[in-house]
Amino acid sequence: MINIVIAGPRGNMGKEAVQMVTKDPDFRLTAVVDRKYNGFQMKDVEEMPDLDVPVFEDMAECFQQVSCEVLIDLTSPESGKKHMLTAFDYGVRPVVGTTGFTEEDIKELSLIAEEKELGAIIAPNFAIGAILLMKFSQQAAKYLSDVEIIEQHHDRKLDAPSGTAVKTAELISEVRETKQQGHPDETEQLKGARGANYDGMRIHSVRLPGLVAHQEVIFGGEGQSLKLRHDSFNRASFMPGVKLACETVLTLPGLVYGLDQIID
Amino acid sequence: MINIVIAGPRGNMGKEAVQMVTKDPDFRLTAVVDRKYNGFQMKDVEEMPDLDVPVFEDMAECFQQVSCEVLIDLTSPESGKKHMLTAFDYGVRPVVGTTGFTEEDIKELSLIAEEKELGAIIAPNFAIGAILLMKFSQQAAKYLSDVEIIEQHHDRKLDAPSGTAVKTAELISEVRETKQQGHPDETEQLKGARGANYDGMRIHSVRLPGLVAHQEVIFGGEGQSLKLRHDSFNRASFMPGVKLACETVLTLPGLVYGLDQIID
Amino acid sequence: MINIVIAGPRGNMGKEAVQMVTKDPDFRLTAVVDRKYNGFQMKDVEEMPDLDVPVFEDMAECFQQVSCEVLIDLTSPESGKKHMLTAFDYGVRPVVGTTGFTEEDIKELSLIAEEKELGAIIAPNFAIGAILLMKFSQQAAKYLSDVEIIEQHHDRKLDAPSGTAVKTAELISEVRETKQQGHPDETEQLKGARGANYDGMRIHSVRLPGLVAHQEVIFGGEGQSLKLRHDSFNRASFMPGVKLACETVLTLPGLVYGLDQIID
Amino acid sequence: MINIVIAGPRGNMGKEAVQMVTKDPDFRLTAVVDRKYNGFQMKDVEEMPDLDVPVFEDMAECFQQVSCEVLIDLTSPESGKKHMLTAFDYGVRPVVGTTGFTEEDIKELSLIAEEKELGAIIAPNFAIGAILLMKFSQQAAKYLSDVEIIEQHHDRKLDAPSGTAVKTAELISEVRETKQQGHPDETEQLKGARGANYDGMRIHSVRLPGLVAHQEVIFGGEGQSLKLRHDSFNRASFMPGVKLACETVLTLPGLVYGLDQIID
Repeated sequence: MINIVIAGPRGNMGKEAVQMVTKDPDFRLTAVVDRKYNGFQMKDVEEMPDLDVPVFEDMAECFQQVSCEVLIDLTSPESGKKHMLTAFDYGVRPVVGTTGFTEEDIKELSLIAEEKELGAIIAPNFAIGAILLMKFSQQAAKYLSDVEIIEQHHDRKLDAPSGTAVKTAELISEVRETKQQGHPDETEQLKGARGANYDGMRIHSVRLPGLVAHQEVIFGGEGQSLKLRHDSFNRASFMPGVKLACETVLTLPGLVYGLDQIID
Repeated sequence: MINIVIAGPRGNMGKEAVQMVTKDPDFRLTAVVDRKYNGFQMKDVEEMPDLDVPVFEDMAECFQQVSCEVLIDLTSPESGKKHMLTAFDYGVRPVVGTTGFTEEDIKELSLIAEEKELGAIIAPNFAIGAILLMKFSQQAAKYLSDVEIIEQHHDRKLDAPSGTAVKTAELISEVRETKQQGHPDETEQLKGARGANYDGMRIHSVRLPGLVAHQEVIFGGEGQSLKLRHDSFNRASFMPGVKLACETVLTLPGLVYGLDQIID
Repeated sequence: MINIVIAGPRGNMGKEAVQMVTKDPDFRLTAVVDRKYNGFQMKDVEEMPDLDVPVFEDMAECFQQVSCEVLIDLTSPESGKKHMLTAFDYGVRPVVGTTGFTEEDIKELSLIAEEKELGAIIAPNFAIGAILLMKFSQQAAKYLSDVEIIEQHHDRKLDAPSGTAVKTAELISEVRETKQQGHPDETEQLKGARGANYDGMRIHSVRLPGLVAHQEVIFGGEGQSLKLRHDSFNRASFMPGVKLACETVLTLPGLVYGLDQIID
Repeated sequence: MINIVIAGPRGNMGKEAVQMVTKDPDFRLTAVVDRKYNGFQMKDVEEMPDLDVPVFEDMAECFQQVSCEVLIDLTSPESGKKHMLTAFDYGVRPVVGTTGFTEEDIKELSLIAEEKELGAIIAPNFAIGAILLMKFSQQAAKYLSDVEIIEQHHDRKLDAPSGTAVKTAELISEVRETKQQGHPDETEQLKGARGANYDGMRIHSVRLPGLVAHQEVIFGGEGQSLKLRHDSFNRASFMPGVKLACETVLTLPGLVYGLDQIID
């Protein structure tokens, strides 16, 4: 049984995390840390579920009063760093799901974690399926060097291609022999048909109402194709990754950045 | 039992047609018309299968000597027209699989077919699956007006998008309320990511070794998506369409252009 | 501008319908009918959105006090019938989304609608994408007679195959030449591998956590395959169908059962 | 430049291998070994391509007369073993694509390869995409334990499920926590709908004309799914694997069984 404190329990991710931790028989939610509602029980707060779990505004006070091995922090980068330092002071291992840490932040936090011999995980993306997709794409690109990426999102998305698609292309570029794919003499009768060119491979962005977040990576080789696809339907898709991080952080000797680092 | 003559039996399509006709219990191959090998049997010609079927160079002579209700013509546009006229003279109904007829040609041939009360089909594309895909796409667009097309071909293809993709977009445009899809403020961080713009909808062209000819049409609506996909693996994919045409041409009162016209 | 009353505004479907109607510039929500909260405005009721729209418990009273051309009824089959009769009395055209009507109910309601020359739609399924999928499957089966169905749902679903899959197979059976698909000598090394046998075609049911409701119908023909797929991500997927019904019901001369009847 | 001899150049795989080796700028085809046509040049034999490459019936004689670093053997298991022994005698590294070796054979050949410090590869399956699919499936199953397999083949296939599907399920079983998937109370209204049960996971076999060889492995987790798919369109799909084996065998210190062993 792992005792867990969650910071940021009223955010989108935080709500899912509360639900995941309270449902999992291996986890126990001992407290939440919130900017408001100090001294209340969760069940007293309208935006929180009906639980007999205390709410704290101050993280140090929280760690003094309840048992905690792992802190799940789903707040902001600024709070995240402060919360990690407090966690280290109390021998608590942090699992942090915010982006925006600088390289210096990470170096500094790494050093402290190592000194205190405490595991810690900062993960900008907890969607384990998406991370597996990126990892497999990189592996496959060693053997099948022709590849295109098709990412599909709802039509309220402003940027194209998606961050995950670009990150996937980057990872593939690290191992793939550089080359311009397609026929050397190919032409576009309609501009843009062949998609965006990233280091000689192509990325296509589909935007349609009804879609959520989907990505296909298609490899072609003689007489065959290999297609890897991840569909993310809602924020619950982050929870298997958060769970894995909570279990793994207990066995780590220091800080790890990125969920891909704890997946083999 | 329908008696059939095939013109162009050594071409890629012709070879498939010979195989289809000889395998089908409702069809009988009574002769082939070829530019060479007049007077031989097919089994005597190295590039032809082992069949006791006579070869003719002259189509009129062929129709005088063997029974024939339907002519399958898989030669060239020039020969195609001449062959149709000869077929009409002998009361034979032609199924013609060549592109390149002018509008005038078709008008002229239509008039003759109507006078003689003979069915005739000219079809630039016999791939029944592709034609169904286009038809369904047009129907769906009446109810789900957001749509993108992804076509995928081998990387020896020079043009993008494919003719079928553009044709599909045209058919959709005929019924769809015109609008610019995607978020009005969307931007491309990498140029071309959002594909080609056809009347406000997007077309994406994937080119990879190993692929053959594939097309997806994806419709998005609130909370759902509808995806129609056709995969063409080889030339045999044209044969169900040729068969349908041979059966249907017997019941037609005149000339029909396009296989989509005989599908309901 | 079409004036609309919604009955059952606090149910899952009802909530979506309220949102759809208030967002659509062609529609105006003039009242809701609810089992409670008579005399309140929607904005006064916690479970309802912040709207200046009156709530009625009695449908007749509602129609006396507000303008209404179309009633959207998302209550129960018992209430549904009663509500339809009241609507007919006030010259209002009902769009009803409940299952459970008997054949007699429908006959009776049909007669009344016809007499009063009022359009009416009862639709057990408003998911327009699913209905298009069924329609296209039936059309394709005329030309490609080999077909298998793969339906995929979350793993809390108790029955297999899904009702939609069986309904699709039924529709295909109506037009397809009956035959046992697969090789005549095929054997299962593991029992059940070839799926359920429906009139010679196969249905496969996938159940996995994370999935919502998905269906693929795959047609195979020589050298090709045609795949039709519908993904339903959430209840909003019913709204384009409800909208279409509201627009169409104004032009109908009587009662129509099934959304497929108003799609061509 | 690697000098290569191919045994079995007139078989289906052999023909593809000849084409691959002669096209690849890093490879040179120095001879072929065939049961007939000793002393001829390939160009003199009707079933062989137009190449100035000598044909030998005796492998030892072949190795005495031409340069060769790698032997590609695509004959039969009996010949395969004999050919490997001859290759070892002449310091040639064999890449063998036949099934049917006994465990003893492999042990014996392994010992000889090790003594002579010669690399050797025996691979029952050279389809690199299929092997990657199996490998990724096993990796993903560690993190997403709910999985179903859908394999799709032409309808001339007699057995179900396919060997690759069962092999994939075995590999997944090695790492996955055993459990019965689906709802504990689920029932089949049509027998077989839920597919074959392999260690609690389900396998579905689709058989349709037109299809070639396709496999999907679908993982479900909260709010997401991960789909891995391999399509094999023709025998050329084995060639990237043969090429990789030829390159890798030069660096191996002994015998390796299975292409998956040289992929990381």
